[in-house]
Amino acid sequence: MTRILGIDPGSQRTGIGVIDVDAAGRCRYVHAQALVLLAAEDFPSRLGLLCDGLEALIAQWQPQQVAIETVFMDKSAMSALKLGQARGAALATVVRHRLPVAEYEPRVVKQSLVGRGAADKAQVQHMVRLLLNLPEAKLQADAADALAIALTHAHMSATAGRTGLSTDALRRRG
Amino acid sequence: MTRILGIDPGSQRTGIGVIDVDAAGRCRYVHAQALVLLAAEDFPSRLGLLCDGLEALIAQWQPQQVAIETVFMDKSAMSALKLGQARGAALATVVRHRLPVAEYEPRVVKQSLVGRGAADKAQVQHMVRLLLNLPEAKLQADAADALAIALTHAHMSATAGRTGLSTDALRRRG
Repeated sequence: MTRILGIDPGSQRTGIGVIDVDAAGRCRYVHAQALVLLAAEDFPSRLGLLCDGLEALIAQWQPQQVAIETVFMDKSAMSALKLGQARGAALATVVRHRLPVAEYEPRVVKQSLVGRGAADKAQVQHMVRLLLNLPEAKLQADAADALAIALTHAHMSATAGRTGLSTDALRRRG
Repeated sequence: MTRILGIDPGSQRTGIGVIDVDAAGRCRYVHAQALVLLAAEDFPSRLGLLCDGLEALIAQWQPQQVAIETVFMDKSAMSALKLGQARGAALATVVRHRLPVAEYEPRVVKQSLVGRGAADKAQVQHMVRLLLNLPEAKLQADAADALAIALTHAHMSATAGRTGLSTDALRRRG
Protein backbone atom coordinates (compact mmCIF):
# COMPACT_ATOMS: atom_id res chain seq x y z
CA MET A 1 0.00 0.00 0.00
CA THR A 2 1.34 3.38 -0.99
CA ARG A 3 -0.08 6.68 0.24
CA ILE A 4 0.01 9.48 -2.34
CA LEU A 5 -0.47 13.19 -1.67
CA GLY A 6 -1.69 15.15 -4.69
CA ILE A 7 -1.23 18.93 -4.72
CA ASP A 8 -2.96 21.41 -7.00
CA PRO A 9 -1.05 24.58 -6.12
CA GLY A 10 -2.68 28.01 -6.24
CA SER A 11 -1.95 31.29 -4.51
CA GLN A 12 -5.60 31.76 -3.45
CA ARG A 13 -6.56 28.14 -2.83
CA THR A 14 -4.35 25.05 -2.91
CA GLY A 15 -6.08 21.72 -3.44
CA ILE A 16 -4.95 18.70 -1.43
CA GLY A 17 -5.91 15.10 -2.16
CA VAL A 18 -4.73 11.96 -0.38
CA ILE A 19 -5.29 8.44 -1.72
CA ASP A 20 -3.98 4.95 -1.00
CA VAL A 21 -3.02 2.65 -3.86
CA ASP A 22 -2.47 -1.07 -3.37
CA ALA A 23 -0.08 -3.39 -5.23
CA ALA A 24 -2.78 -4.16 -7.81
CA GLY A 25 -3.20 -0.45 -8.55
CA ARG A 26 -6.57 -0.13 -6.74
CA CYS A 27 -7.08 3.37 -5.32
CA ARG A 28 -8.93 4.37 -2.15
CA TYR A 29 -10.00 7.87 -1.09
CA VAL A 30 -8.36 9.02 2.16
CA HIS A 31 -8.78 12.79 2.41
CA ALA A 32 -9.32 15.89 0.28
CA GLN A 33 -9.64 19.58 1.02
CA ALA A 34 -8.71 23.01 -0.21
CA LEU A 35 -6.33 25.18 1.80
CA VAL A 36 -7.90 28.64 1.56
CA LEU A 37 -5.16 31.26 1.64
CA LEU A 38 -7.12 34.46 1.04
CA ALA A 39 -7.45 35.32 4.73
CA ALA A 40 -3.72 36.13 5.03
CA GLU A 41 -2.93 39.83 5.12
CA ASP A 42 -0.02 39.81 2.67
CA PHE A 43 1.55 37.49 0.12
CA PRO A 44 4.36 36.07 2.31
CA SER A 45 1.76 35.25 5.01
CA ARG A 46 -0.32 33.50 2.38
CA LEU A 47 2.67 31.29 1.52
CA GLY A 48 3.08 30.81 5.28
CA LEU A 49 -0.52 29.55 5.55
CA LEU A 50 0.12 27.24 2.61
CA CYS A 51 3.29 25.78 4.18
CA ASP A 52 1.77 25.44 7.65
CA GLY A 53 -1.33 23.78 6.21
CA LEU A 54 0.72 21.41 4.12
CA GLU A 55 3.03 20.60 7.06
CA ALA A 56 -0.01 19.73 9.20
CA LEU A 57 -1.49 17.53 6.46
CA ILE A 58 1.83 15.71 5.90
CA ALA A 59 2.08 15.10 9.67
CA GLN A 60 -1.51 13.87 9.84
CA TRP A 61 -1.66 11.68 6.72
CA GLN A 62 2.00 10.61 6.36
CA PRO A 63 2.15 10.33 2.56
CA GLN A 64 5.00 8.33 1.02
CA GLN A 65 4.89 9.98 -2.40
CA VAL A 66 3.83 13.37 -3.69
CA ALA A 67 2.41 14.34 -7.07
CA ILE A 68 2.02 17.94 -8.19
CA GLU A 69 0.71 19.49 -11.36
CA THR A 70 3.08 21.43 -13.59
CA VAL A 71 1.84 24.89 -14.36
CA PHE A 72 -0.53 25.68 -17.16
CA MET A 73 1.43 28.27 -19.13
CA ASP A 74 -1.41 29.99 -20.98
CA LYS A 75 -1.34 32.80 -18.41
CA SER A 76 0.11 36.23 -17.96
CA ALA A 77 3.56 36.68 -16.41
CA MET A 78 1.85 38.04 -13.26
CA SER A 79 -0.36 34.94 -12.88
CA ALA A 80 2.62 32.71 -13.59
CA LEU A 81 4.62 34.50 -10.91
CA LYS A 82 1.90 34.16 -8.24
CA LEU A 83 1.25 30.55 -9.13
CA GLY A 84 5.00 29.91 -9.24
CA GLN A 85 5.41 31.25 -5.72
CA ALA A 86 2.64 29.01 -4.39
CA ARG A 87 4.11 26.04 -6.24
CA GLY A 88 7.61 26.85 -4.97
CA ALA A 89 6.39 27.10 -1.38
CA ALA A 90 4.52 23.79 -1.67
CA LEU A 91 7.54 22.05 -3.26
CA ALA A 92 9.87 23.48 -0.62
CA THR A 93 7.68 22.03 2.14
CA VAL A 94 7.51 18.62 0.47
CA VAL A 95 11.22 18.49 -0.37
CA ARG A 96 12.07 19.36 3.23
CA HIS A 97 10.34 16.13 4.25
CA ARG A 98 12.52 14.28 1.68
CA LEU A 99 9.39 12.97 -0.04
CA PRO A 100 9.79 11.94 -3.68
CA VAL A 101 7.91 14.33 -5.97
CA ALA A 102 6.53 13.55 -9.41
CA GLU A 103 5.28 16.31 -11.68
CA TYR A 104 2.51 15.92 -14.26
CA GLU A 105 1.32 18.26 -16.96
CA PRO A 106 -2.41 19.06 -16.91
CA ARG A 107 -2.88 17.27 -20.27
CA VAL A 108 -1.26 14.12 -18.80
CA VAL A 109 -3.68 14.20 -15.84
CA LYS A 110 -6.62 14.54 -18.25
CA GLN A 111 -5.28 11.83 -20.57
CA SER A 112 -4.71 9.49 -17.62
CA LEU A 113 -8.19 9.94 -16.11
CA VAL A 114 -10.46 10.63 -19.06
CA GLY A 115 -8.40 9.28 -21.97
CA ARG A 116 -8.28 12.66 -23.70
CA GLY A 117 -5.67 15.39 -23.10
CA ALA A 118 -8.27 18.04 -23.89
CA ALA A 119 -10.97 16.81 -21.45
CA ASP A 120 -12.77 19.52 -19.44
CA LYS A 121 -12.67 19.94 -15.66
CA ALA A 122 -16.18 18.52 -15.17
CA GLN A 123 -15.19 15.27 -16.90
CA VAL A 124 -12.05 14.98 -14.78
CA GLN A 125 -14.06 15.55 -11.59
CA HIS A 126 -16.65 13.02 -12.71
CA MET A 127 -13.90 10.42 -13.19
CA VAL A 128 -12.36 11.24 -9.81
CA ARG A 129 -15.73 10.59 -8.13
CA LEU A 130 -16.23 7.39 -10.11
CA LEU A 131 -12.71 5.99 -9.49
CA LEU A 132 -12.82 6.79 -5.76
CA ASN A 133 -16.49 5.95 -5.33
CA LEU A 134 -17.37 9.36 -3.91
CA PRO A 135 -20.83 10.94 -3.58
CA GLU A 136 -21.69 13.88 -5.85
CA ALA A 137 -21.77 16.57 -3.16
CA LYS A 138 -18.53 15.79 -1.42
CA LEU A 139 -15.86 17.42 -3.58
CA GLN A 140 -14.61 20.98 -3.71
CA ALA A 141 -13.15 21.75 -7.18
CA ASP A 142 -9.51 22.30 -6.06
CA ALA A 143 -9.65 19.21 -3.87
CA ALA A 144 -10.98 17.18 -6.82
CA ASP A 145 -8.10 18.41 -9.00
CA ALA A 146 -5.60 17.38 -6.32
CA LEU A 147 -7.17 13.90 -6.16
CA ALA A 148 -6.94 13.73 -9.97
CA ILE A 149 -3.19 14.41 -9.75
CA ALA A 150 -2.77 11.74 -7.05
CA LEU A 151 -4.75 9.24 -9.17
CA THR A 152 -2.58 10.03 -12.20
CA HIS A 153 0.50 9.27 -10.15
CA ALA A 154 -1.04 6.00 -8.95
CA HIS A 155 -1.78 5.00 -12.57
CA MET A 156 1.68 6.02 -13.77
CA SER A 157 3.38 4.12 -10.92
CA ALA A 158 1.29 1.02 -11.71
CA THR A 159 2.26 1.30 -15.39
CA ALA A 160 5.89 1.79 -14.42
CA GLY A 161 5.70 -1.32 -12.22
CA ARG A 162 4.33 -3.44 -15.07
CA THR A 163 6.86 -2.25 -17.63
CA GLY A 164 9.83 -2.28 -15.26
CA LEU A 165 10.41 1.44 -15.75
CA SER A 166 10.81 3.78 -12.81
CA THR A 167 8.12 6.45 -12.46
CA ASP A 168 10.88 8.98 -12.86
CA ALA A 169 11.89 7.55 -16.23
CA LEU A 170 8.26 7.49 -17.35
CA ARG A 171 7.84 11.05 -16.25
CA ARG A 172 10.87 12.16 -18.28
CA ARG A 173 9.44 10.44 -21.32
CA GLY A 174 5.95 11.94 -20.86
CA MET B 1 21.94 46.10 16.61
CA THR B 2 19.71 44.40 14.08
CA ARG B 3 20.85 41.64 11.75
CA ILE B 4 19.24 41.72 8.31
CA LEU B 5 19.24 38.93 5.74
CA GLY B 6 18.80 40.12 2.16
CA ILE B 7 17.67 37.62 -0.48
CA ASP B 8 17.88 38.03 -4.25
CA PRO B 9 15.93 34.97 -5.38
CA GLY B 10 16.72 33.17 -8.60
CA SER B 11 16.13 29.62 -9.81
CA GLN B 12 19.73 29.22 -11.00
CA ARG B 13 21.52 31.28 -8.36
CA THR B 14 20.05 32.91 -5.25
CA GLY B 15 22.03 35.78 -3.74
CA ILE B 16 22.35 36.02 0.04
CA GLY B 17 23.60 39.07 1.94
CA VAL B 18 23.81 39.54 5.70
CA ILE B 19 24.45 42.92 7.35
CA ASP B 20 24.22 44.39 10.85
CA VAL B 21 22.66 47.80 11.35
CA ASP B 22 23.05 49.74 14.59
CA ALA B 23 20.61 52.18 16.24
CA ALA B 24 22.21 55.09 14.35
CA GLY B 25 21.60 53.31 11.03
CA ARG B 26 25.28 52.40 10.46
CA CYS B 27 25.63 49.20 8.44
CA ARG B 28 28.32 46.56 8.71
CA TYR B 29 29.05 43.69 6.28
CA VAL B 30 28.62 40.25 7.86
CA HIS B 31 28.39 37.71 5.03
CA ALA B 32 27.48 37.37 1.37
CA GLN B 33 27.37 34.51 -1.08
CA ALA B 34 25.43 33.04 -3.94
CA LEU B 35 23.64 29.72 -3.53
CA VAL B 36 24.33 27.95 -6.84
CA LEU B 37 21.41 25.69 -7.67
CA LEU B 38 22.34 24.43 -11.14
CA ALA B 39 23.92 21.19 -9.89
CA ALA B 40 20.51 19.77 -8.87
CA GLU B 41 19.15 17.14 -11.25
CA ASP B 42 15.58 18.45 -11.46
CA PHE B 43 13.60 21.54 -10.52
CA PRO B 44 12.18 20.31 -7.18
CA SER B 45 15.72 19.32 -6.11
CA ARG B 46 16.90 22.80 -7.06
CA LEU B 47 14.29 24.29 -4.73
CA GLY B 48 15.46 21.75 -2.15
CA LEU B 49 19.05 23.02 -2.46
CA LEU B 50 17.76 26.58 -2.11
CA CYS B 51 15.78 25.76 1.05
CA ASP B 52 18.56 23.69 2.63
CA GLY B 53 21.10 26.41 1.87
CA LEU B 54 18.88 29.12 3.27
CA GLU B 55 18.10 27.02 6.38
CA ALA B 56 21.84 26.56 7.03
CA LEU B 57 22.51 30.28 6.57
CA ILE B 58 19.64 31.25 8.91
CA ALA B 59 20.98 28.81 11.52
CA GLN B 60 24.53 30.15 11.13
CA TRP B 61 23.85 33.90 10.98
CA GLN B 62 20.62 34.18 13.01
CA PRO B 63 19.06 37.14 11.19
CA GLN B 64 16.25 39.05 12.93
CA GLN B 65 14.72 40.54 9.80
CA VAL B 66 14.53 39.51 6.17
CA ALA B 67 14.32 41.65 3.04
CA ILE B 68 13.57 40.23 -0.39
CA GLU B 69 13.23 41.82 -3.80
CA THR B 70 9.86 41.79 -5.53
CA VAL B 71 10.02 40.36 -8.99
CA PHE B 72 10.92 42.38 -12.03
CA MET B 73 7.91 41.79 -14.28
CA ASP B 74 9.44 42.57 -17.67
CA LYS B 75 9.86 38.86 -18.32
CA SER B 76 8.10 36.03 -20.05
CA ALA B 77 5.52 33.94 -18.22
CA MET B 78 8.02 31.05 -18.14
CA SER B 79 10.75 33.19 -16.50
CA ALA B 80 8.19 34.60 -14.07
CA LEU B 81 7.10 31.08 -13.15
CA LYS B 82 10.65 29.83 -12.50
CA LEU B 83 11.56 32.94 -10.57
CA GLY B 84 8.26 32.75 -8.68
CA GLN B 85 9.00 29.19 -7.60
CA ALA B 86 12.44 30.16 -6.28
CA ARG B 87 10.95 33.17 -4.52
CA GLY B 88 8.11 31.07 -3.07
CA ALA B 89 10.56 28.47 -1.77
CA ALA B 90 12.74 31.17 -0.19
CA LEU B 91 9.74 32.90 1.40
CA ALA B 92 8.40 29.59 2.69
CA THR B 93 11.71 28.89 4.43
CA VAL B 94 11.86 32.35 5.97
CA VAL B 95 8.20 32.37 7.05
CA ARG B 96 8.68 28.99 8.71
CA HIS B 97 11.24 30.65 11.00
CA ARG B 98 8.61 33.32 11.81
CA LEU B 99 11.00 36.03 10.61
CA PRO B 100 9.42 39.32 9.54
CA VAL B 101 9.78 39.82 5.79
CA ALA B 102 9.85 43.14 3.95
CA GLU B 103 9.58 43.28 0.16
CA TYR B 104 11.15 45.96 -2.02
CA GLU B 105 10.75 46.66 -5.70
CA PRO B 106 13.99 46.80 -7.72
CA ARG B 107 13.45 50.52 -8.40
CA VAL B 108 13.15 51.17 -4.62
CA VAL B 109 16.46 49.36 -4.01
CA LYS B 110 18.12 51.49 -6.72
CA GLN B 111 16.51 54.70 -5.47
CA SER B 112 17.58 53.93 -1.91
CA LEU B 113 21.22 53.16 -2.75
CA VAL B 114 22.00 55.32 -5.76
CA GLY B 115 19.27 57.97 -5.55
CA ARG B 116 17.86 57.05 -8.96
CA GLY B 117 15.23 54.36 -9.64
CA ALA B 118 16.79 53.73 -13.06
CA ALA B 119 20.38 53.20 -11.85
CA ASP B 120 22.27 50.30 -13.45
CA LYS B 121 23.58 47.20 -11.67
CA ALA B 122 27.19 48.39 -11.72
CA GLN B 123 26.23 51.60 -9.85
CA VAL B 124 24.28 49.62 -7.26
CA GLN B 125 27.21 47.26 -6.74
CA HIS B 126 29.59 50.20 -6.48
CA MET B 127 27.43 51.74 -3.73
CA VAL B 128 27.18 48.41 -1.89
CA ARG B 129 31.00 48.22 -1.80
CA LEU B 130 31.26 51.83 -0.71
CA LEU B 131 28.60 51.62 2.03
CA LEU B 132 29.99 48.39 3.45
CA ASN B 133 33.64 49.27 2.87
CA LEU B 134 34.34 46.19 0.79
CA PRO B 135 37.30 45.57 -1.53
CA GLU B 136 36.63 45.51 -5.29
CA ALA B 137 37.27 41.81 -5.84
CA LYS B 138 35.14 40.43 -3.05
CA LEU B 139 31.61 40.46 -4.41
CA GLN B 140 29.77 38.02 -6.63
CA ALA B 141 26.95 39.83 -8.54
CA ASP B 142 24.00 37.98 -6.94
CA ALA B 143 25.54 38.37 -3.49
CA ALA B 144 25.97 42.12 -4.12
CA ASP B 145 22.30 42.40 -5.10
CA ALA B 146 21.29 40.62 -1.90
CA LEU B 147 23.41 43.03 0.15
CA ALA B 148 21.75 45.93 -1.71
CA ILE B 149 18.33 44.63 -0.65
CA ALA B 150 19.48 44.27 2.98
CA LEU B 151 20.92 47.83 2.90
CA THR B 152 17.64 49.16 1.49
CA HIS B 153 15.79 47.55 4.38
CA ALA B 154 18.25 49.06 6.87
CA HIS B 155 17.70 52.52 5.33
CA MET B 156 13.93 52.13 5.26
CA SER B 157 13.85 50.91 8.86
CA ALA B 158 16.00 53.88 9.94
CA THR B 159 13.63 56.24 8.09
CA ALA B 160 10.66 54.51 9.67
CA GLY B 161 12.27 54.92 13.10
CA ARG B 162 12.77 58.67 12.60
CA THR B 163 9.26 59.28 11.30
CA GLY B 164 7.54 56.96 13.76
CA LEU B 165 6.12 54.83 10.96
CA SER B 166 6.50 51.07 10.99
CA THR B 167 8.56 49.62 8.15
CA ASP B 168 5.49 47.74 7.16
CA ALA B 169 3.49 50.96 6.79
CA LEU B 170 6.30 52.53 4.77
CA ARG B 171 6.44 49.51 2.55
CA ARG B 172 2.69 49.69 1.90
CA ARG B 173 3.05 53.33 0.93
CA GLY B 174 6.04 52.63 -1.38
